[in-house]
Amino acid sequence: MLSRQIAAKLQEYETPFYLYDVALLRQTLESLMSIASKYDYKIHYAIKANYDARLLQIIREYGVGIDCASGNELRCAIEAGFDPKQIVYAGVGKRDKEIRYAIEQGILAINCESIEELHLVNELAGEAGRVVSVALRVNPDIDPKTNHCIDTGQADSKFGISYEEILSQVDDIKSLMNIQVIGMHIHIGSQIRELHVFENMCNKVNAIVANLTQLGFELEFVDVGGGLGINYDMPENEPIPNFASVFAIIKQHLKVGARSVHFEFGRSIVGQCGELITKVLFNKTTATGRRLVIVDASMTELIRPALYGSYHNIENITSEEEQRLKYTIVGTACESTDVFDENVSLPITKRGDLLTIKSAGAYGMSMASCYNQHDLPGAVYSDTL
Amino acid sequence: MLSRQIAAKLQEYETPFYLYDVALLRQTLESLMSIASKYDYKIHYAIKANYDARLLQIIREYGVGIDCASGNELRCAIEAGFDPKQIVYAGVGKRDKEIRYAIEQGILAINCESIEELHLVNELAGEAGRVVSVALRVNPDIDPKTNHCIDTGQADSKFGISYEEILSQVDDIKSLMNIQVIGMHIHIGSQIRELHVFENMCNKVNAIVANLTQLGFELEFVDVGGGLGINYDMPENEPIPNFASVFAIIKQHLKVGARSVHFEFGRSIVGQCGELITKVLFNKTTATGRRLVIVDASMTELIRPALYGSYHNIENITSEEEQRLKYTIVGTACESTDVFDENVSLPITKRGDLLTIKSAGAYGMSMASCYNQHDLPGAVYSDTL
Repeated sequence: MLSRQIAAKLQEYETPFYLYDVALLRQTLESLMSIASKYDYKIHYAIKANYDARLLQIIREYGVGIDCASGNELRCAIEAGFDPKQIVYAGVGKRDKEIRYAIEQGILAINCESIEELHLVNELAGEAGRVVSVALRVNPDIDPKTNHCIDTGQADSKFGISYEEILSQVDDIKSLMNIQVIGMHIHIGSQIRELHVFENMCNKVNAIVANLTQLGFELEFVDVGGGLGINYDMPENEPIPNFASVFAIIKQHLKVGARSVHFEFGRSIVGQCGELITKVLFNKTTATGRRLVIVDASMTELIRPALYGSYHNIENITSEEEQRLKYTIVGTACESTDVFDENVSLPITKRGDLLTIKSAGAYGMSMASCYNQHDLPGAVYSDTL
Repeated sequence: MLSRQIAAKLQEYETPFYLYDVALLRQTLESLMSIASKYDYKIHYAIKANYDARLLQIIREYGVGIDCASGNELRCAIEAGFDPKQIVYAGVGKRDKEIRYAIEQGILAINCESIEELHLVNELAGEAGRVVSVALRVNPDIDPKTNHCIDTGQADSKFGISYEEILSQVDDIKSLMNIQVIGMHIHIGSQIRELHVFENMCNKVNAIVANLTQLGFELEFVDVGGGLGINYDMPENEPIPNFASVFAIIKQHLKVGARSVHFEFGRSIVGQCGELITKVLFNKTTATGRRLVIVDASMTELIRPALYGSYHNIENITSEEEQRLKYTIVGTACESTDVFDENVSLPITKRGDLLTIKSAGAYGMSMASCYNQHDLPGAVYSDTL
């Protein structure tokens, strides 16, 4: 919880704004990179989680690479000084100009998500007179026991190439002379809190890598994606995700020989270091007796509750009241869905109080919009307070 | 459906972009304003539906006023040349600076949504040495038979002041000397397609207006909001909403004497004149046999399907194939929810084809974001093709 002293300082800034705890970000990166280096794992930051220039500088200092999902994200990473050789570019729908830019920059790999895309990269690489490194992004829903695809939501998703399609097109893929398949990429999901899921993933990756190798692909790296969740319920209890446990599981179960192993972490790096600070504008009570607190933030600054029903812990950081009441916290946008949370226990909360909406460092600012002509929120860094 | 000739011209523009049918917008406005003038109804455009400068110019030509939901929306309207005396400003969370700006501009009314807001407007009006016109935005869930609030989702929503709160605070409201309550405002919902709902609304408004009058408020206008839906399923069948039927119902059932009656239409004015034109990047088939079409638009240009599960009719405007297949249309964003629609029947659809995502004129561009560092889409107007 923010100290009274800091909360008082925050009153000087125009709300709403994102407050970034730079020390926590550094501790998170130190924890992550020190454990990763023990296993010689390569870490990429999923830049879509947050594009903040200051955060990118800090992340870069720790030798982290980048996972990007568009040509503009790639440009953002390049301009922030990340080494192209530590950048991978995935995405189901890459345009010609984005692929051309990635080829020009000589990034580590373009992670291709369809047979058509492999052909396109091959064609554009040929035009550029290059042989381009690619990874096959494989749809994760292969049953590691049978090596056959199983019918689940995963197998039906838009991401990756199905293993069976790779199998049926293997000669075609190998005939493409301007690309070199140097990696495989898998991503099993997001906000994963049950670590045994990563064990299951290892079994899948082992099977896919063994099969691709048997098919004649010489894989140099295996990108096992990200997905490690953070504690939204009680962020103070777990400000830094348990990277050690995840890596221990991966180390134990992943059998990919001497190939280099890459991870893509977004939320787990920046999620907990960011909070959205917002001011209470009004209180009112509905005809049904519900106490509403209307704050000056909205879904335009943080869309996760409206878009995904996501929970963020909310606290009043300036109230000095003892008594606590239950409130519904709503935003300024002219949309019924613009509700941050219901039944939030807060000390008696009044106009002018500051609330913090916690664990908002990932997919907060990066998904912000200007709906209702709202200004984009600013950023304040803990070390400049 | 767009002619082949126009579709060919659209190939010249960088996709995705919004295509606006200016002739349809004009026909819609002509229809709306000619019927409204018969009844002497005042029409406001809910500017949050679309801020496009060209569309605003056209809308202004027809003598339409503005309903805005933020200080920046008000600024946008003023800068587009709308008459402040035809502008109302609603919104549950107005900041001091936004209220001050509205006071400076001398708009028709600030529609206040809480008792605290009434006090704040009174205070800021006093500071400005003015008496400011306000409307009471009343939460619609009053039972017209009993005049008492009933327990529904509406009554529990964040919008408006409950009628019972007004009743309990009437002396307080009347004691505020720098505001003058000149109107009442109600808004019963959005995308309403069953017109009897408007009859029910009239009964509510009649009861509220009678009661407010009895309480001593001298209302000059009644703002009955908007909410008129459009035909997303088959837009060609109903390009212009049936304003005549709505107005006939209102005329028959609304009993508010000589008070001026105001409407706020957003979607029904601009919804059908806009389409999102996007290019097919890739095809692929999932392990489960689902045919995916990956287009170069995404939820960053049009978030309604992802945010609200909204349906938009999609057509291929360039394919010359006879055979039709069922496709799932997905976007480029790195989110599982970024799916425009499933089981869409299209002629065989290939890389390079143009698709139109119809009825996207409202809450399309205005809700766009730059997630994944996507560029904001451009706009093309039918009369410049």
